[in-house]
Amino acid sequence: MRIALDAMGGDYAPAVNVEGAIETVNDLEGIDVILVGDESSIKRELDSKKYLPNRISIKHASQVVGMDESPSVAIRKKKDSSIRRAIELVKNGEADAFVSAGHSGVVMATALLLLGDSIGVDRPAIAAIMPTLKAPFVLIDAGANLYCKPENLLQFALMGSAYCRVIFRRSEPKVALLSIGEEDTKGNELTKEAFKLLKKVDINFTGNIDGKDIFAGIADVIVCDGFTGNIVLKTSEGLADAIVRILKREIVDQSAGRIGYLLMKSALKSFKKKTDYSEYGGAPLLGINGTCIISHGRSTTKAIRNALRVAADLSEKKVHEIIAFEIEKGMVSKVDKK
Amino acid sequence: MRIALDAMGGDYAPAVNVEGAIETVNDLEGIDVILVGDESSIKRELDSKKYLPNRISIKHASQVVGMDESPSVAIRKKKDSSIRRAIELVKNGEADAFVSAGHSGVVMATALLLLGDSIGVDRPAIAAIMPTLKAPFVLIDAGANLYCKPENLLQFALMGSAYCRVIFRRSEPKVALLSIGEEDTKGNELTKEAFKLLKKVDINFTGNIDGKDIFAGIADVIVCDGFTGNIVLKTSEGLADAIVRILKREIVDQSAGRIGYLLMKSALKSFKKKTDYSEYGGAPLLGINGTCIISHGRSTTKAIRNALRVAADLSEKKVHEIIAFEIEKGMVSKVDKK
Repeated sequence: MRIALDAMGGDYAPAVNVEGAIETVNDLEGIDVILVGDESSIKRELDSKKYLPNRISIKHASQVVGMDESPSVAIRKKKDSSIRRAIELVKNGEADAFVSAGHSGVVMATALLLLGDSIGVDRPAIAAIMPTLKAPFVLIDAGANLYCKPENLLQFALMGSAYCRVIFRRSEPKVALLSIGEEDTKGNELTKEAFKLLKKVDINFTGNIDGKDIFAGIADVIVCDGFTGNIVLKTSEGLADAIVRILKREIVDQSAGRIGYLLMKSALKSFKKKTDYSEYGGAPLLGINGTCIISHGRSTTKAIRNALRVAADLSEKKVHEIIAFEIEKGMVSKVDKK
Repeated sequence: MRIALDAMGGDYAPAVNVEGAIETVNDLEGIDVILVGDESSIKRELDSKKYLPNRISIKHASQVVGMDESPSVAIRKKKDSSIRRAIELVKNGEADAFVSAGHSGVVMATALLLLGDSIGVDRPAIAAIMPTLKAPFVLIDAGANLYCKPENLLQFALMGSAYCRVIFRRSEPKVALLSIGEEDTKGNELTKEAFKLLKKVDINFTGNIDGKDIFAGIADVIVCDGFTGNIVLKTSEGLADAIVRILKREIVDQSAGRIGYLLMKSALKSFKKKTDYSEYGGAPLLGINGTCIISHGRSTTKAIRNALRVAADLSEKKVHEIIAFEIEKGMVSKVDKK
């Protein structure tokens, strides 16, 4: 299994990318990593570290896409970017999957251009895994599409449902539509129209879900447009982080609490692990004809390592092929089926 | 000071509404409450309780607006609803302010119809107060307007800034625009256009804010459309609640943690208080020519009591008049001023 890693993407690239690759090949059997990006920068990072040299290779790319670039311009002008060169490796069969912590819009557009979409999917979407009181759920779209039509949300629901079945082995995932109230009539034009479409297809659609119930563990898949999904994902990360800080301060502020804090350290640590994005490593871009993992811009070494592990896992399970098959099957309406 | 309270609005009405009114008149000097709604139901709740009878009165209304009704239909067909009758009391000068935990869309449309908008405001907006690592901030719009134009977001920014100055006494509130990245170029068409407008007016606009930074305490006012605002508000509530539950479970799961939990109880309690919506009671609808507080549908007795207190406070401070004045002043562009 060979994974192409965009060595230049993310806030701490290429250092954490190279470290993540080294940890992966040192710790995990069967995953080789191709570091894609500026050869001399990558070599500098590699030189100071111990690793299995035959499991890591470099593919040079002279350009880097900045986080504030427009996807259309980046695609036109940066033909030698690390993102493009890495996706080309997947296209040419030199790599089995691709990971990037770079500009997600450019990653999506380039993947769509070079690898193409899965049959029947108009827009690929990012499927993020989020923790709840009970089991984790799949949030789709977590940020790929800022503008969505009702039909896009329908396809996100089908992809999310198929993905959930494969990765969590849940047989009939409960799919909910994120809106501003749980009543059927609540929502904006987009969610109201999507609601009607979702009722027709053959998935376990449970209706609207309100923001307050996202973390109650009542849905396996939560569907929304990419703008809303990005806000939900990042707000949750920010809040979880703030809460841990506030709690630590509360404890220190209280004299009795100091002893409590020492005793509670492991509980806080275990909680942090559950809400830490880097544990999940990255989110797949579903609907692409290939395995493509988008990692957080703030990715740490651990996040990169986990993203590489997830990429290998999804590629091995042929998730993108299963999703294409399930979408075709899923578009059958409940009425047709009867 | 007389506050008109919609006795029939909210999930636990009229019981908690009546209890909240009783606690208010019993505990606070100078606030009288007019309970608006079905007289016999209200009397039944009042009968079993002790309260100062000359400080609570009843205004009968025969109709109740359901949470799933369309605002336009409710306004046309329910002329004797508790929401409408209560707002009429404000219009006629029989009450100084109005509180409802009912259908927020109907409250907004009725308030706009009967009281009118503040001069220069096209769309009123809900201004919710949210806690952070540092001081709390104002989220506007927290759910009144599902569809917004860039000009609406500009007005929300001006109203939020004025509101923040009045209630928190912050002289130059930092106003940020909620988007999917902090870079100037990130966002959808709505936020990109609003960004340009916000740069021109005479407020302390600090640019885009990403979801992950909402709770970092770097903005005094965060501006967004009402769909996004509702999702942010409710997702945060749901997550804070889930985190407290997860932490309690983590602590109990760990043998050493049990002692830690006892020691930490007060820290958790203090934290819960900080993130508990009912402490803030309700959020004002800004841009209306009058004082109107919208409470959570799940309002408890404490939430209703706090909403009544907030209504009295904002009415006394004549916040809606100050906002009208500040908006007129604020629309002056930075260019004009030079």
